[in-house]
Amino acid sequence: MRYVSFDGEDTISPDDFFMAEALREARLALAEDEIPIGAVVVCQGKIIGRGHNLTERLNDVSAHAEMQALTAATNYIGGKYLKDCTLYVTMEPCVMCAGASYWFQVGKIVFGAYDTKLGFGRLNQKITHPKTIITGGIRENECGELVRNFFKKKRERKG
Amino acid sequence: MRYVSFDGEDTISPDDFFMAEALREARLALAEDEIPIGAVVVCQGKIIGRGHNLTERLNDVSAHAEMQALTAATNYIGGKYLKDCTLYVTMEPCVMCAGASYWFQVGKIVFGAYDTKLGFGRLNQKITHPKTIITGGIRENECGELVRNFFKKKRERKG
Repeated sequence: MRYVSFDGEDTISPDDFFMAEALREARLALAEDEIPIGAVVVCQGKIIGRGHNLTERLNDVSAHAEMQALTAATNYIGGKYLKDCTLYVTMEPCVMCAGASYWFQVGKIVFGAYDTKLGFGRLNQKITHPKTIITGGIRENECGELVRNFFKKKRERKG
Repeated sequence: MRYVSFDGEDTISPDDFFMAEALREARLALAEDEIPIGAVVVCQGKIIGRGHNLTERLNDVSAHAEMQALTAATNYIGGKYLKDCTLYVTMEPCVMCAGASYWFQVGKIVFGAYDTKLGFGRLNQKITHPKTIITGGIRENECGELVRNFFKKKRERKG
């Protein structure tokens, strides 16, 4: 992994940098045989919440990476809202998570791979907070590849 | 509260009966100065999960009654899905909770009062599971009145 530097060639954008941190969380999920999706919440350049998918370990289909990271972030700041924060997540959030981001009033969502089937972007009405800015496709291949490989291996094991 | 009986006049429908239980949960929320919304999950005539809004106590804007009741129900059955279960909730679920019900594969959602502003029904696309049956308006006045009175009193205290 490269770190942010300000001397030329090695500089990466904050989005690339923090998505790498979300990917690190996704790999923690993978190591536990969870669908490898990870998330971090960033406020003023600092990670204030981290999370990865825990649906198997918690036997809770709603224990998505975003839900973990968002609640971790509000626990950290002791407040309810994340207006000045960015949620980085390796996959496009589902409708539940995008709906949660409405309540947290997340300032910005940056996601990695698109999920055309279950991502919230399939809806033609806005469900995030009116002020939430959305960016997708950051480190898209790495993020998507992790999940695709996970399911490919699952199928091979079953087959 | 009346109980189900089979001898005529006092008989109430299962929907009325279980919504009364969801209302009981809503009043527990009210007693804790939470927005009074309650929920129960019912499987084969038995309540297997209960919950009420805990957003203030948990300092978690996603701690809605439905989320509590759904996770309580899956904890109880030790399984992931609630295909043969009904979620009773006093208010029309928001987009986050309806999105969660997709993952839990809830068989049926019965809600009390409509929420035209934040309810999932405002969307023109289906976000619940394809097999989820939806019914609204059960004990609508009681359910809605609880929330309206709560906010009315809040405003009076502020004013």
